[in-house]
Amino acid sequence: MNRFFVPGVCIQTQRVVFPTDLAHQIYRVLRLHPQEHVLALDNEGGIFEVELDIINSTEVSGQIIKRDHGVNEALTQITLYLGLTQREKFELILQKCTEVGVRSFVPLITRRSLVQSGRDVENKIERWQRILREAAEQSERDIIPELKKVQSLSSLAKLASDEAGFVLWEEEAASNFRAALNETQNRKISLLIGPEGGLSDDEVKICKQAGFQPVSLGKRIFRMETAAIVAAAVTLFANGDMDI
Amino acid sequence: MNRFFVPGVCIQTQRVVFPTDLAHQIYRVLRLHPQEHVLALDNEGGIFEVELDIINSTEVSGQIIKRDHGVNEALTQITLYLGLTQREKFELILQKCTEVGVRSFVPLITRRSLVQSGRDVENKIERWQRILREAAEQSERDIIPELKKVQSLSSLAKLASDEAGFVLWEEEAASNFRAALNETQNRKISLLIGPEGGLSDDEVKICKQAGFQPVSLGKRIFRMETAAIVAAAVTLFANGDMDI
Repeated sequence: MNRFFVPGVCIQTQRVVFPTDLAHQIYRVLRLHPQEHVLALDNEGGIFEVELDIINSTEVSGQIIKRDHGVNEALTQITLYLGLTQREKFELILQKCTEVGVRSFVPLITRRSLVQSGRDVENKIERWQRILREAAEQSERDIIPELKKVQSLSSLAKLASDEAGFVLWEEEAASNFRAALNETQNRKISLLIGPEGGLSDDEVKICKQAGFQPVSLGKRIFRMETAAIVAAAVTLFANGDMDI
Repeated sequence: MNRFFVPGVCIQTQRVVFPTDLAHQIYRVLRLHPQEHVLALDNEGGIFEVELDIINSTEVSGQIIKRDHGVNEALTQITLYLGLTQREKFELILQKCTEVGVRSFVPLITRRSLVQSGRDVENKIERWQRILREAAEQSERDIIPELKKVQSLSSLAKLASDEAGFVLWEEEAASNFRAALNETQNRKISLLIGPEGGLSDDEVKICKQAGFQPVSLGKRIFRMETAAIVAAAVTLFANGDMDI
């Protein structure tokens, strides 16, 4: 069944009235018909099964026939801090890590980031939000991951006491990620991945001061996007969040 | 230091003479100079540090100054069976799973594969071999993963007694991949990923008969390329092959 995240105002007591962009998709692209069913998600965990009855160029809406609560979210809440890098790479990470189950993304300006100003990012936000929404719909997430404000690594905030944090660092030779993941009791885990070209020693120091533990994914050298996908996946896997 | 896989015949007792394509890359693209060092790998685990001395349009060669044996390969040997699918997706999987550490790839023709004839694949082999080589060089693998012959899922051979096999199947609701990985003592693990559109029930039956256990990666639905990368990564991670 097709899944669509809709703004809360679209969900009325008995009916869902789809916003213009989704109405277009349902009517023009998917060409659904009255009596077909779709799922509307409120992005707060609520899932509403809708039997479409009005489908035309000015309105797409239908009757709510079932209310449910999503159960597909990982219990482990990953925040992924990502060094800004070239567009295709960054967008691949947003898409794939949404499928894997990351809860929120923080674009980071670092010394070796290709992007050095928050303003360069502003006109991409809408596009990135759309990538997150579509990947969340496709992978049957219950919520759309949150895209947080771009920030500078130099002003990285200290981790809260109920959070664990890990910075992926290929030069790390002491710390075992698998052991560290097995040890942590925290369900909130922040992962920080530097841009292509890596983090400088000073930047790793800043991460450590903020409470991030440097870890390595072993001897093979991963490209940034591979490191992001693999780090998120093994974090959820190790915590039982890929069990059935 | 730049790493290059070279054919065995290029490695002489004291010297390495680079083949034409790599000579071109070293001379024209990377513009290396005499006295610079590179690593030549023989694809059997041998690593030779070479001090370049001849660099021109007809020859690039140098003196072997150190012989070593690679230590970057995972102990777990993953064979990845991959349903043939659109080119970009398939090539992304080859590249990323080489970084992660997969040992060999088997392109599979399945009922819902986009490609239905081994002949369609033949003219891509050379390109795929290059992708594997470049990804192996970049990720500092000791060997290039093997690209095996395309085969049909309907003639899938039975797993050997020292092999474990898992078929990723989103409809699997009984078997826990994490538990299964923890249980297996085998260092040879075959993973089978269907094409976009999935495997048919009959095909899953064939996989089971060949000894592949159906497993799921949890409740979120992964695209094929994400499933391949994640399955390979968690297999190596669970076996300690991403420890340092």
